[in-house]
Amino acid sequence: MHVMVDLCVVPLGVGVSVSPQVAACQKVIRASGLSHCLHAYGTNIEGPWDEVMAVVKRCHEVVHEMGAPRITSTLKVGTRIDRVQSLDDKVASVEALLER
Amino acid sequence: MHVMVDLCVVPLGVGVSVSPQVAACQKVIRASGLSHCLHAYGTNIEGPWDEVMAVVKRCHEVVHEMGAPRITSTLKVGTRIDRVQSLDDKVASVEALLER
Amino acid sequence: MHVMVDLCVVPLGVGVSVSPQVAACQKVIRASGLSHCLHAYGTNIEGPWDEVMAVVKRCHEVVHEMGAPRITSTLKVGTRIDRVQSLDDKVASVEALLER
Amino acid sequence: MHVMVDLCVVPLGVGVSVSPQVAACQKVIRASGLSHCLHAYGTNIEGPWDEVMAVVKRCHEVVHEMGAPRITSTLKVGTRIDRVQSLDDKVASVEALLER
Repeated sequence: MHVMVDLCVVPLGVGVSVSPQVAACQKVIRASGLSHCLHAYGTNIEGPWDEVMAVVKRCHEVVHEMGAPRITSTLKVGTRIDRVQSLDDKVASVEALLER
Repeated sequence: MHVMVDLCVVPLGVGVSVSPQVAACQKVIRASGLSHCLHAYGTNIEGPWDEVMAVVKRCHEVVHEMGAPRITSTLKVGTRIDRVQSLDDKVASVEALLER
Repeated sequence: MHVMVDLCVVPLGVGVSVSPQVAACQKVIRASGLSHCLHAYGTNIEGPWDEVMAVVKRCHEVVHEMGAPRITSTLKVGTRIDRVQSLDDKVASVEALLER
Repeated sequence: MHVMVDLCVVPLGVGVSVSPQVAACQKVIRASGLSHCLHAYGTNIEGPWDEVMAVVKRCHEVVHEMGAPRITSTLKVGTRIDRVQSLDDKVASVEALLER
């Protein structure tokens, strides 16, 4: 099962700036080789379910290893069995409608 | 790693009522034996990371098997390494503050 | 427009325990007189759109007034124009299917 | 109060493709003049609280006017009073850490 997620990891108890933890997650995501896209409120990641979810788990582990006592993440999880659709396809289909 | 999630499964392409799919997910969650609590906009589930995430995956599989071509779920994912906290503890600690 | 939301307010930069801030939001919600239900990962609130959104805004204001420099909340927002459905109706329709 | 949101509007009861509704929301967002960025699983929008929330409400109204009987949206809502930070700043601060 192919999945597209939007992951936003929020460490608690580390102060007000969370960019070091977000950057550490970004390294985990890049190292996975999965297709992904960082935006201002999370990161889109797509690929086989188990590989994507292993990345989400690894992000939690890495952020705890950096010292965060608590993490609350938000994950949107999209699957479809009618057709294959990539991250780029989703954006392109909306932009095509806007340009008409 | 212990995790507490809030899962809201939204099937697309099945019409306006989604309660049959939500009930099917509820059966998956109950069958897992994990601690859980249904509310009006999702279900809280807690337990070991891999067990909880297997339930989330099984929910997507079951809803697709029921005929939904597309699913978009929302998942909040909470982990903490400072102390153990159950679903009931979280609600109780807020209610204790309110009653003071 | 009637709306049903699920609100989870997460203050950053206040340490690892966030229950004082969650309790303060609970007071704002109760004072609004809107129908609501606290669970382990947020609070369901329902009512007229502008009243519900005023509560969400007031929660952010109150948590900042308590000293939180930063807040990241998650909000699920449900509207429907086909029929009226309360928080209790949603849970009851799933439980009715499970009991059959 | 300045706010940064991530909005994902999901219409139910309109079939499996939701890009016409997402494109209609995109037009509402563009017409607002607020800073925004479309990604594969939502749109980041930033600006004064009341203006941003008026856009969210207008999106629900427009999608219902297009015929969707039901909508479930997800909204992440970020506010901070310690400093001003734009959508671009957030991405840039993570990328700066990655390039070191």
